[in-house]
Amino acid sequence: MNTFGKNLTLTTFGESHGPAMGGIIDGFPAGYKINFERLLAEVAKRRPGQSVLVTARKETDTPEFLSGISPDGITLGTPIGFIVRNADHHSSDYDEMAKAYRPSHADYTYIARYGLRDHRGGGRQSARETVNWVVAGALALQWLESKGISIEAVLSQVGPITAGDLFDGLMTEPEKPFCLEVNPDLRLAMEEFVKETKKAGDSVGGKVSCLITGLPAGIGSPVADKLHSRLAAAMMSINAAKGFEYGMGFRASSAMGSKVNDPFLPSSAPGEPLKTATNFSGGIQGGISNGMPVFFSVAFKPTPTLMIPQDTVDTQGNHITLNPAGRHDPCVAVRAVPVVKAMAALVVADFLV
Amino acid sequence: MNTFGKNLTLTTFGESHGPAMGGIIDGFPAGYKINFERLLAEVAKRRPGQSVLVTARKETDTPEFLSGISPDGITLGTPIGFIVRNADHHSSDYDEMAKAYRPSHADYTYIARYGLRDHRGGGRQSARETVNWVVAGALALQWLESKGISIEAVLSQVGPITAGDLFDGLMTEPEKPFCLEVNPDLRLAMEEFVKETKKAGDSVGGKVSCLITGLPAGIGSPVADKLHSRLAAAMMSINAAKGFEYGMGFRASSAMGSKVNDPFLPSSAPGEPLKTATNFSGGIQGGISNGMPVFFSVAFKPTPTLMIPQDTVDTQGNHITLNPAGRHDPCVAVRAVPVVKAMAALVVADFLV
Amino acid sequence: MNTFGKNLTLTTFGESHGPAMGGIIDGFPAGYKINFERLLAEVAKRRPGQSVLVTARKETDTPEFLSGISPDGITLGTPIGFIVRNADHHSSDYDEMAKAYRPSHADYTYIARYGLRDHRGGGRQSARETVNWVVAGALALQWLESKGISIEAVLSQVGPITAGDLFDGLMTEPEKPFCLEVNPDLRLAMEEFVKETKKAGDSVGGKVSCLITGLPAGIGSPVADKLHSRLAAAMMSINAAKGFEYGMGFRASSAMGSKVNDPFLPSSAPGEPLKTATNFSGGIQGGISNGMPVFFSVAFKPTPTLMIPQDTVDTQGNHITLNPAGRHDPCVAVRAVPVVKAMAALVVADFLV
Amino acid sequence: MNTFGKNLTLTTFGESHGPAMGGIIDGFPAGYKINFERLLAEVAKRRPGQSVLVTARKETDTPEFLSGISPDGITLGTPIGFIVRNADHHSSDYDEMAKAYRPSHADYTYIARYGLRDHRGGGRQSARETVNWVVAGALALQWLESKGISIEAVLSQVGPITAGDLFDGLMTEPEKPFCLEVNPDLRLAMEEFVKETKKAGDSVGGKVSCLITGLPAGIGSPVADKLHSRLAAAMMSINAAKGFEYGMGFRASSAMGSKVNDPFLPSSAPGEPLKTATNFSGGIQGGISNGMPVFFSVAFKPTPTLMIPQDTVDTQGNHITLNPAGRHDPCVAVRAVPVVKAMAALVVADFLV
Repeated sequence: MNTFGKNLTLTTFGESHGPAMGGIIDGFPAGYKINFERLLAEVAKRRPGQSVLVTARKETDTPEFLSGISPDGITLGTPIGFIVRNADHHSSDYDEMAKAYRPSHADYTYIARYGLRDHRGGGRQSARETVNWVVAGALALQWLESKGISIEAVLSQVGPITAGDLFDGLMTEPEKPFCLEVNPDLRLAMEEFVKETKKAGDSVGGKVSCLITGLPAGIGSPVADKLHSRLAAAMMSINAAKGFEYGMGFRASSAMGSKVNDPFLPSSAPGEPLKTATNFSGGIQGGISNGMPVFFSVAFKPTPTLMIPQDTVDTQGNHITLNPAGRHDPCVAVRAVPVVKAMAALVVADFLV
Repeated sequence: MNTFGKNLTLTTFGESHGPAMGGIIDGFPAGYKINFERLLAEVAKRRPGQSVLVTARKETDTPEFLSGISPDGITLGTPIGFIVRNADHHSSDYDEMAKAYRPSHADYTYIARYGLRDHRGGGRQSARETVNWVVAGALALQWLESKGISIEAVLSQVGPITAGDLFDGLMTEPEKPFCLEVNPDLRLAMEEFVKETKKAGDSVGGKVSCLITGLPAGIGSPVADKLHSRLAAAMMSINAAKGFEYGMGFRASSAMGSKVNDPFLPSSAPGEPLKTATNFSGGIQGGISNGMPVFFSVAFKPTPTLMIPQDTVDTQGNHITLNPAGRHDPCVAVRAVPVVKAMAALVVADFLV
Repeated sequence: MNTFGKNLTLTTFGESHGPAMGGIIDGFPAGYKINFERLLAEVAKRRPGQSVLVTARKETDTPEFLSGISPDGITLGTPIGFIVRNADHHSSDYDEMAKAYRPSHADYTYIARYGLRDHRGGGRQSARETVNWVVAGALALQWLESKGISIEAVLSQVGPITAGDLFDGLMTEPEKPFCLEVNPDLRLAMEEFVKETKKAGDSVGGKVSCLITGLPAGIGSPVADKLHSRLAAAMMSINAAKGFEYGMGFRASSAMGSKVNDPFLPSSAPGEPLKTATNFSGGIQGGISNGMPVFFSVAFKPTPTLMIPQDTVDTQGNHITLNPAGRHDPCVAVRAVPVVKAMAALVVADFLV
Repeated sequence: MNTFGKNLTLTTFGESHGPAMGGIIDGFPAGYKINFERLLAEVAKRRPGQSVLVTARKETDTPEFLSGISPDGITLGTPIGFIVRNADHHSSDYDEMAKAYRPSHADYTYIARYGLRDHRGGGRQSARETVNWVVAGALALQWLESKGISIEAVLSQVGPITAGDLFDGLMTEPEKPFCLEVNPDLRLAMEEFVKETKKAGDSVGGKVSCLITGLPAGIGSPVADKLHSRLAAAMMSINAAKGFEYGMGFRASSAMGSKVNDPFLPSSAPGEPLKTATNFSGGIQGGISNGMPVFFSVAFKPTPTLMIPQDTVDTQGNHITLNPAGRHDPCVAVRAVPVVKAMAALVVADFLV
């Protein structure tokens, strides 16, 4: 229910307005040296309040590690327990919400599921939970890097401002040098759009694109644990995710086999891993990695919290006008970038440990 | 590895060219009367060789139930074991393939994963496995119907022939009568396109759209078992799936919150389940159903088997030209329709048992 | 619910009076050559009707393997599905039982759990289920042997006839040659006692002792998956099991630490696995094997079916006298011997795959 | 690996000499009011340093709850995260041990399993871990009580001082009033024996007996999740446990069926739960509770730490004499009493949630 993974598991807890978030990472390999500075830098990327792009809530978000790592930073093979204290509560901001079902929020469904709810910030459904994932993912990312595997993610669309399909080149000419990045002008345009949206009290959707390189062939299982099935499940666990596609994705629906099959290239030397001339498959065939780059995209909806009045109902089902209060993240996709990366790292590491 | 689900589980086995496929359904409620005639009709829908649209392989695909159901068709609450015998093997068709890595097939990844492979039809990676899912799903569908929940799926795109977004009306005007169907002319055009594709020895991608109605609010979990995360994982387990989206899906990336939030409507009577004025959410908020229709789409790539020669390499990494042999399903999305339905049923039933 | 194991899993189905028993073994290593002759010999050991000691029901119990093994007997790494057909039903023997709750049987508890019951032979609670375990265990035993690990089990007590603590020597002088066997006179006395018991229409308890040798140090986990915890769970899953002890077992309660600590012996050569001077620990310390022989015993109650009339109640709660009918196994411990061995093999293999 | 349970799960972390122990309880029912005073009293029972009977280490062991419980003590249905800070480290006490493999300790097996070890107090193998279990168990105990289920445990043997089989009366005359307690003289004798043992620098084994009353019929599963199998696994997870038996336990091996079958008594009124005239079954038949009291015993070995020099080897395999240091618990069974109770509560609650 609150556990991700099979061999490398992450079990989490925490309400956004409770004392702390936290988790237990079980199955992390013994004997690996953690670089805490880099870990904190990774965690900082999802922290709100860093730029105009995101909510103003200030939190230091420094995880406290309570087990599983020796005083000199070596993993012990035992479960890694950590907590991240919550701070900066303005619960009174949420008083009005206690009586309302906010549109497209999980207030109503949460009541339907549990019979009661902690209205202060969404309980377990708050995106605050993702701090746990990013902490755990940052550990996984470091360990994967030590195996030559790297994972990158970028914001590839914000409302009307889109970078198009960043992976076009990777699909048609995978042997060409490739760098997952968005043109600076576009990035600026995205930032501007988010600013305008915030000013208007509105919110906007977005898309995050993710690339995994260095993954050897043979990762994944052919039936119930396909690599892309696990990636999809992880990505669709992120708050506000509405869609997932890998390789050629939805364009596959209109494609002809003769155009998008990926022929294997003759091997450069006996025993060398094979490569394919194209990579429409997105590095996965039959649920198992084939050694080519793996890439996918995730669509996010606009955050449902708006700074403009909205019609909805109270908990008795009567019409009310919901007046805005609390923090406001105009584009949840911005903060989802490190979360996508972290979850991808947890999935991949789960297969490798 | 070969088990789906948590409370209602399906564990499967079977190589497409071995003696039989089969599975064990554990956790199915006791005391439910099975309608075998309807079950066989459902299984028949995925059977190849029924129309020009699909492969010519002839199989009766009648499951033999070995436990868990009394002689008079009542479920016992004990695990339901079943097998489906394989037939019509032309293993010699596959002789050439034993030496080749077929483009975009899982031959190479399978070797990378297991070190050996049963080349006769793809081993566990054959779509033959889906017969197990459809048998189990057909049981789940019947049980869900007895709870007032129904699941439908249609082929909504074949290559360039597309029904557009079938769910448009459901999103903007969910109170209007809705029927998940594709216009007969379009259906005919899809059939024609598949025929032409087959004639050309080529293959084509497609899309399947699925609608779940009657699902009460409160199904799903807020963190690791979001309803849409489980649906995504199940759909991405289907052979050739490349993308999944629910509700407004990838269109969310370009949407503004003020346009796509779903306001709750005042309740018709105290205690009545709430409805929303629009349904861009696709019936799920925060991972939990809200009582509105749930809908999603799945993109499928063209089947990688072509009836035209293809460049690839042999198992030594040397270039070869692969000549076509074996059966040919020009559009795997056609047969995926009952599979999507079955997997959706298993996911939903897993949350309800 | 019907799945054993974590990495090497066995999921089973089957009612004793349904068409077949069966199971799926998932996670069995690829590339291992199965010796079917030896497998059948192992399965035959639990078959009823072989000697005076056990029930007269005749079954051939030949498993049919449906997947996961190539035609030439090589495991494929894919799930191994198998079935064992049931035969020789005398359901009418059980007619009277449909109306009665048999003393110390699971009739009443089964109704309490499921609300309905298949009275013909106990449904899932019949010891017939153990045929599935023995088939799977026989595969695991062969694979373990290829790793130098062997598992033996013997009947060490039948009612008053007891072999004492067979492991005394292994505990105090583990370096001495040891053979797990019961003196032939004692064995004969056990057989005689079972015969007499059967003649009297009564039943008798017993004990099975099991020895695992060749297990390297390092198998098991320190907290939730202790090796002996998993062994205990597996043994207590066997029908009629009432107790489990390993190493010095219940004698530990009265022991002094200074007498039963196991000192490590100086190693014979650098890097050589260590040995202990005594083995009161039973080869496991802190839940993890230490390289010394692992041994344990399992207590079984007399089978509750008697061939003498018994007082009990009918399903309405009224007093009735239950007249004997059906088959009669006077000592369930006799047939438990290969089951103990099989379950031990599955537990150990689960840790090693 | 560090998770107990299936529906109500406890995942734990913590090294005895790290900053904190802790855990996450997932699946605890929503809306239940916690009595923290009683919870702390239960946790205090396992705390060392309370009496002459146990180790002198002083710890307050006050759990800090970080989530899952509202400020006014109501459970939220979300995961309950908690930590218990460690204190009172005398790591230097353990310096010598860093070089030694202590007899019957898990030092050597831990190295064999993980390749490295935190020698300061045993890492994950320290009984300190059980504080996590007692915290979680105390929550489960309260919830079970609200359902009319109570669990008690007593120390029933210390070395030669034994209370005999406390459950004799419950087996033969279950309708008579019963109280699980040890005669005060015997208790005093046990305390005296522990004192003497401690003075001698030795250690001693013991036995804990546990009684569960108020459990309704129908709890447990017939095959892989038998109630007593789950209890056995939980009990054998407790440090130093060597044996488990329930109902008539090992006495079953010598029993005749005609003497130990439990006849059902005619029901007092239609629909009333049935009772049995005797209770040799220990309240469980076929793995499922039958509504009679459930009882079992667990054997514990003497703690392997002695305050007298012992022969063993260093990590190079050379003979050394190990001189005593650190704390000394002469009888681990004493502190196991609340742990047995807690683990029983977690197992039972796991079936009921």
